[in-house]
Order: sequence, then C-alpha cells, then structure tokens
Amino acid sequence: MKRRDFLTGAAAAGAATGASGLAAPAIVRAQDAMDWKMVTTWPKNAPGVGVNAQRFADMVTEMSGGRLNIRLFAAGELVPPFECLDAVQADTAQLAHSTPYYWVGKSPALNYFTTVPFGLMAWELSAWIHFGGGQALWEEVYAPFNVVPFYAGSSGVQSGGWFNTEINTLDDLKGLKMRIAGLGGEVMRRLGVAVVLTPPGDIQPSLMSGAVDAAEWVSPWLDIAFGLQKAAKYYYVPAFHEPGPGLEVIVNKDRFEALPDDLKAIVRYAARATSETTLADFTFNNIAVFAEMRKAFPDINLRTFPDVVVQAMGEKTREVIEEIAAEDALTRRVHDSFTAFNRRAEAYQAHFDLPALRMRQQVFGS
Amino acid sequence: MKRRDFLTGAAAAGAATGASGLAAPAIVRAQDAMDWKMVTTWPKNAPGVGVNAQRFADMVTEMSGGRLNIRLFAAGELVPPFECLDAVQADTAQLAHSTPYYWVGKSPALNYFTTVPFGLMAWELSAWIHFGGGQALWEEVYAPFNVVPFYAGSSGVQSGGWFNTEINTLDDLKGLKMRIAGLGGEVMRRLGVAVVLTPPGDIQPSLMSGAVDAAEWVSPWLDIAFGLQKAAKYYYVPAFHEPGPGLEVIVNKDRFEALPDDLKAIVRYAARATSETTLADFTFNNIAVFAEMRKAFPDINLRTFPDVVVQAMGEKTREVIEEIAAEDALTRRVHDSFTAFNRRAEAYQAHFDLPALRMRQQVFGS
Repeated sequence: MKRRDFLTGAAAAGAATGASGLAAPAIVRAQDAMDWKMVTTWPKNAPGVGVNAQRFADMVTEMSGGRLNIRLFAAGELVPPFECLDAVQADTAQLAHSTPYYWVGKSPALNYFTTVPFGLMAWELSAWIHFGGGQALWEEVYAPFNVVPFYAGSSGVQSGGWFNTEINTLDDLKGLKMRIAGLGGEVMRRLGVAVVLTPPGDIQPSLMSGAVDAAEWVSPWLDIAFGLQKAAKYYYVPAFHEPGPGLEVIVNKDRFEALPDDLKAIVRYAARATSETTLADFTFNNIAVFAEMRKAFPDINLRTFPDVVVQAMGEKTREVIEEIAAEDALTRRVHDSFTAFNRRAEAYQAHFDLPALRMRQQVFGS
Repeated sequence: MKRRDFLTGAAAAGAATGASGLAAPAIVRAQDAMDWKMVTTWPKNAPGVGVNAQRFADMVTEMSGGRLNIRLFAAGELVPPFECLDAVQADTAQLAHSTPYYWVGKSPALNYFTTVPFGLMAWELSAWIHFGGGQALWEEVYAPFNVVPFYAGSSGVQSGGWFNTEINTLDDLKGLKMRIAGLGGEVMRRLGVAVVLTPPGDIQPSLMSGAVDAAEWVSPWLDIAFGLQKAAKYYYVPAFHEPGPGLEVIVNKDRFEALPDDLKAIVRYAARATSETTLADFTFNNIAVFAEMRKAFPDINLRTFPDVVVQAMGEKTREVIEEIAAEDALTRRVHDSFTAFNRRAEAYQAHFDLPALRMRQQVFGS
C-alpha cells in the first residue's frame, strides 16, 4: 500500500468490515492527570492499524489509572497524516501511531524498520529490534527529530497483488500497468512495469476498466473488504516486497523523558503489548477472511510468482537496497545490521519454520 | 522436553549460557504496596523461560510504581515446580509463570494451550487465544482451579531431536530408544519407538554411551548449551510435535479480581508484552546460535523427517488427539475450536508465510 492513499482506503475498509468506535474506559480523573494527544496516519478505527492504535491509547490510560490519558486523533483530525512525525517533533501532539517508512524522506534508514523486499518476517523483525541491536539504531535515526520509537507490531506478510493477466515470464511484466507502492514499486519499475499510484478507492474501478492491469493492496482481510476479488482473476500471493511490515509508536523525547519511571514503563510496555495484539489481530482475520474467500469466490485463481520472476525481483532488490544503503553512514550501519540478521534468519528458517509449515501441510493439506 | 526433568536441565543451561541475575528496579515503596509471590516451573534465570518470567515480574513492579511488587521464586524455592498450579489455587503464591501442558493431569484440554503435534505456529496460537475464542475456553478450563490464565509467549518451533542413526523409513523407528516427551512421545511409541525419559543432564551421556539412540530437547539455543552436538551425528529439525509451545501466567482469581482496575490492566498487559519479548528472545537466540553452530560444528548432519515418516506421524497424531478430545465435553470443545483454526491456518499459510519463506530462500539461500 502507499502512504499517500492509505487514508481513504482504510476508511472505506473500516466501513466495509463494520469496525465501530471503541468505548474509552471509565476512569476517575487523577489529581495529577496528564492529557496527551496521539496523532495517527490511519482513519479512525481502520481495521488492524486504527483499531490497534486505539487499543494502545486505551492500555496506557487504563494502566496509568487515568494519570496519563491518551486521546487519539485519526488522520487529518489534528494534522494531515503525513505530518505526524513533524507534529510529534513540534510537540503539537505528544505521540503518534504510524509506520517508519512513511518518513523515508527524513532518513532512508527508516525503510528497514518497516520492511524491505525479501526482508524479515514479523516475528524476526521483533527479534532484531528487541535483541539484535535494531532498537538502538532506530533511536539513533530518530534522535535528530527528538522522538523516541517503540515497535508496535506488524500486519504479517502481505499479498502480491491482483492481476488480470498471468505472469509466467519476465516478458509478461514488461509494459504491465500496475499499482504498487514503495520499494516494491521501484523493483517492479526496473523490471519494465509501468508503476501507477491509484488511490485505494479507485483500485477496484481501475482494475475493472482496464486502466491498470494489476494492483497490490494489503492482504485478504483488507483486499476483500475493498472488493478486489470482483475486479481481477489472478491473486498473486504472497508479496515479495512486504514480508512483515512493522508499525511504530513515536513519542516526543522531552515529553517521554519528563515522565516518572512508572509512566515511562507503561508507555514502553503498552507498545510491546500492542505488538503482540496487532500481529494476532491481522493473523486471525487474514486466516478467517481467506477461508471465507475460498468458499465464496471459488473462481479466484491463486498464483505465486514463478521462480524466474522471483529471481529477477531478488536481483533488482539487491540493486535498490544497495543504493539506499549508500545514501549515508547511518543508513549503511542499519542496512548491514538488518541484512546480516536477515541472512542468518533465512538460513535458520530453511530448517525450522519453513519445514514446520511444510510438514503440517503434508499432514493436513488438501 | 518433559516436565519432570526440565528443572535440572534448564538450570544447567542457565549456567552454560552464562545467564546472570537481573537486577530488580529501584523503586520507592508505595504506601499501599502489595507484595505478591510468583512461583515458576523454571530454574532462576533459565534462558528463555526463567529470564522472561523475571522480566514479567519486573514489568509489573515498574509499571505499578511499586504498588504491586512481584517476587519470583524459581522452581523448588517455595514449592516444587509441578505444584505451581496447586500453590496458586491455594494462594500460597498469588501467581505462576509456567506452561499449560504441565497440568494435563487436571484437564487434557490444557494440551492445546501449549501445543499439539502439527498444531499452531507461535503467532497463530496467539491469534487463536486473543481473537479466535481461545482465551474464553482457557478461562473455562481453569475456572474449577480458581485461576485466571494469560498467554505469555512461545519458544517458537522446537527441534526434532539428535539421532545417532538416520531415519529413512518407518522400520528405522522400530525398536529405536529415544528420549522424547509428551504427546510426541506417545506418537513415537505408536510407531514402535521405545520411549525413554532421561533427565536433561543425562541426555548427552546417554547418547554418547548408546543408552539411547536419539533424544529431543528444545531448539539450538538450549540444545547447544547442553552439548548435544557432541553426542550425535544427525540433527533432525524441526520438531513435528512442538511447532510453537505456549507459555502462561496464571493468577489466583480472587486475588486478581480484588485488584483495582489499573493493576488488573498492568498484569494483563505485562503478560501481553512478555509474549512479544519471549518469542523475540527465542527467535533471536536460536537464529544466532544456529549460525554459530554451523560454523563451529560443520560435521553436524541436518535432516528433516522423510515424507513417509511425517505421514505416519500425522496419522498417529490424529489417533492420539482424537482420544484426548473424547475425554470430556470441554476438551472436545477446545479441540474443535483449535483444530478448526489449525486447518484454516494451514490452508492460509500454504499461500502466505510458507511461500514467503521459500521466496526469500530462493533469493538469499545458498
């Protein structure tokens, strides 16, 4: 998905899946109560992202017994969504719920804390951030903006996209008009794809009219909410470019450091708890919606990108990532740390999670 | 691993990996401070389990500003490890950090909240518990014991075991002497294996002397700490029987319900935060130790169980699980809920996490 157009899309999805307002907990106002504003890059109660931003705010309010009350502002309510980082830096809002790669204009290193093509899976990203040196690097990247970052979970692996034509060779990509965001879009562009940035609300109509030949959005939970299964014949899964996109809570550093120790801990561990809840939420709903989709839309053709295409995507990814890493010394250090762990994770998973999933498939798969 | 002998083993591992005591945070004693005792089934600071139990205790103490101080008692310090549930029920301790299948003597339904062969991966177990109805069922299972359960993370997928002989056919299992625990042991027994329960400290010597032909323990992080790579030629990975074992925090229900709302929330979300930290800790360390193992012990032969063996393990697993489900009505309901989600998860992952891991392997694998 693309930052500039997530806004309208997730709002539509919220409506489509019937997400409703979450009631704030009833709490007696403490004498020393503080009120913090939290801006987000998401529409109010957008499934997955908006709902879990609200859950984070409620956790802090509940755990602090109302001493630190966090009021959530959806995208555009207080500041435009892509000014959230600036707003936290300026203390217009004291914190934000977002995703790091929305701020790659500030530092290209921020790509790694969300996701890069063929990068870390959700639970590996959490491992790198919490135990592999990621947190310290992330704090260094954000230090010039006077904000402190906390990991806030992941959507898990996303979808490759909806296509009206089959992709069997690299030639099938040449001249294809595709809506695809970020580094994935850049990789596709280098493979000859005409990359288009359609706002989410227009994805279904543009696929139906033939204005685009293909479009990626999120994963089954949100893709089906947008009706994309009605607009294209082939569902390429999973994404090569977003294996486990990470979310964040960023806090104004002066505000954070002025908190008493117990409230500091509450903010830190509420983000940690939100991480667990968010991945569980996406995992549960993607699994449930995918099962319903297979029953309700048996004509959807599931496809994976063929080996020759994956290999070429891999080569272009290396090119793109190397260019990013070369931009500045800190980004190089983040790249080196992430990439070293990603290689080790790949080598490990070849013998653990990958064959574990394959063995279950042998036993239960149809 | 097996409940009865985890104790000594994890203590040895703690020593081997140099885990040291975690300093308790310095907190001014609050006027209304409560002191709770937390028993655990683990040795003090045992890697992965003991360390993260201590982290949970520290989170609660920190977030409550010392209003709820949790003091951890390692296995045997206050009560014997396998009396933890009884101790929480009797309010000898107010809470415990453990894993549900240690209490299968109380209810066979508890197997599902830890793991069953070919069951849920770590992040799927969390999805089922938090969003798939698992939590409500779990509370129902524990209600007669007057305790409230909270999910506290997972070790991720474990290892299949160390073998001194290759397993190519079902005949190779017949008469094999293997140390293997729990439901996995029962499945192996039905395949003709002579199941042995060696205490962890004896695994390496028994493999070396030929007293056993094979032994499973945990995963690379702990297996290497125990020196098992020196005792057997073949490392079968991953485990068929423990794809994502879950941990728990269980709290005396009267004590929990008497807490003010903010402390209730702190206990609940500290467990949630511990879930995220625990899986990240195991994931990071398994990946790191596996990489070191490959360099330091290039002669270790990595193997996966062959298809014909996996198929037979699957058939025996169905038998064993069906027998468990038939034991009582509540266990049947837990089984049905878990199994329905496990089937849907398998169908989903065939198109998402499994090919995502495979694509990264195509790009980066050697």
